Amino acid sequence: MWIQKEIDLPAQRRGFHLITDRVLAELPELAQISVGMLNVFIKHTSASLSINEDADPTVRQDMESHFNKMVPENAPYYRHTYEGPDDMPAHLKASIIGSHLTIPVTDGRLNMGTWQGIYLCEHRDHASGRSLVLTLNGKV
Amino acid sequence: MWIQKEIDLPAQRRGFHLITDRVLAELPELAQISVGMLNVFIKHTSASLSINEDADPTVRQDMESHFNKMVPENAPYYRHTYEGPDDMPAHLKASIIGSHLTIPVTDGRLNMGTWQGIYLCEHRDHASGRSLVLTLNGKV
Amino acid sequence: MWIQKEIDLPAQRRGFHLITDRVLAELPELAQISVGMLNVFIKHTSASLSINEDADPTVRQDMESHFNKMVPENAPYYRHTYEGPDDMPAHLKASIIGSHLTIPVTDGRLNMGTWQGIYLCEHRDHASGRSLVLTLNGKV
Repeated sequence: MWIQKEIDLPAQRRGFHLITDRVLAELPELAQISVGMLNVFIKHTSASLSINEDADPTVRQDMESHFNKMVPENAPYYRHTYEGPDDMPAHLKASIIGSHLTIPVTDGRLNMGTWQGIYLCEHRDHASGRSLVLTLNGKV
Repeated sequence: MWIQKEIDLPAQRRGFHLITDRVLAELPELAQISVGMLNVFIKHTSASLSINEDADPTVRQDMESHFNKMVPENAPYYRHTYEGPDDMPAHLKASIIGSHLTIPVTDGRLNMGTWQGIYLCEHRDHASGRSLVLTLNGKV
Repeated sequence: MWIQKEIDLPAQRRGFHLITDRVLAELPELAQISVGMLNVFIKHTSASLSINEDADPTVRQDMESHFNKMVPENAPYYRHTYEGPDDMPAHLKASIIGSHLTIPVTDGRLNMGTWQGIYLCEHRDHASGRSLVLTLNGKV
C-alpha cells in the first residue's frame, strides 16, 4: 500500500516549530497500516526537518539559539551573500539537520517515543510557506 | 515482505558505541531478502544513530570530544537547563546527528562499506536503556 | 517494484559536488514508478550525501568553508591522527551531514524542489572514487 500527499504549510517565523499534528491530520490512511514507514520530505533548501522533544518549548528556543551560534550570519568566508545574511546560514543548517525523515509505522500509528515530535525548522527571516511530500508505504 | 521489531538496548555510558552486531542478531530474516531497505529508528530525543568507522576506537573517542566542543554544556543562552547540563546538548546532538538510518539490503545482508558500522550515540551522562524500532522491507 | 544498483563515482577533489544528473542517468526505471522512494547510500565513512541548492556554485564553496571552520583539522583533542589531518574531520563531517538520502518519487521523477540537487560531499584531500547504492522502491 502506497499513499503520497503533497502539503503546503503556512509561512512561519524563523525558528523550530512542531508539525506532528498537521502531518497526522493529512494521513487518516495511517490507521490502516499494520507495519510500514512514513517518509517526510521538505522541498526547500533553507528549511529542514527534525525529530526532537515536543513538550517544553524552551528546547525549541535553545535549538534556534545554538544553531545561530554554530552557523553564524555574516561569516567573513561566505560568498553567497546576495540573498541576505540569513540565506547562507539557512542552507548550512538544512544540510546539518537534514531534509527528510523516515519514521516507522506500527499498528496504525507513528511509532515514535513518548516525547518525540516532528519539527519544521525554519531558517529564513521572511520565508513563504513550505511544501512537504508525505510518502507512506506499508501493509494493511 | 515486512519485518518489524522493537528492541531494548542496555544503558550505556555517554559516548559513541558500535551496535551493528546487536542489530544483525535481531534480524535473522535479513538472510531471506534479496533487495530491500532496513530502517533503524531511536525512540529518544537525547541519543542518536549514525554510521561511521567501526575499526579504530579512537574515532569514537574523537567523536565524543568534538561534539562536546561543538555543542558545549552550560552555554549562556540555554533556557532548558532543569534536567542538568548534559540535557540540552543531548537534544542538539540528536538533531545534528539524527534519529534514524535507512540502509540498503542486498543478497541477504546490509550493503554497507567495509569500514562502516552502526553507532548508538549516547548523549546523556546517566541514561537508561534505549529502544530502537527496526523495520525491514524487501523482496525475497 | 524494487530496483537496486551499485555505482562508482570517479575521484573528486575535496568539496561539495552535484551528482543529481549522474544518479538519474543510472535509473531509467524511475520513469515507470508512479509513487515510491529512492534511497541513496554512500559506502564510505569520510564522505557524505546531502540535498541542497543546485544553482549557485558559491553555496557549495561556502559549505566547504563553513564545515572546515566548524570541524577543524588538527584539533588538540583528536587521537585518530595517523591517516592525516583531514581524516578525523572527514569522519565527523560524515556523521553531521549523513550517509544516506531518501527522496520521494512521484509520476516517474524525483519529487524534489525546484532548487534542490543531490550533493556528494567529499571530505578527504586525496580520495579515490566513491561507491553508492541506489535502491528504488515503488509501484508502477
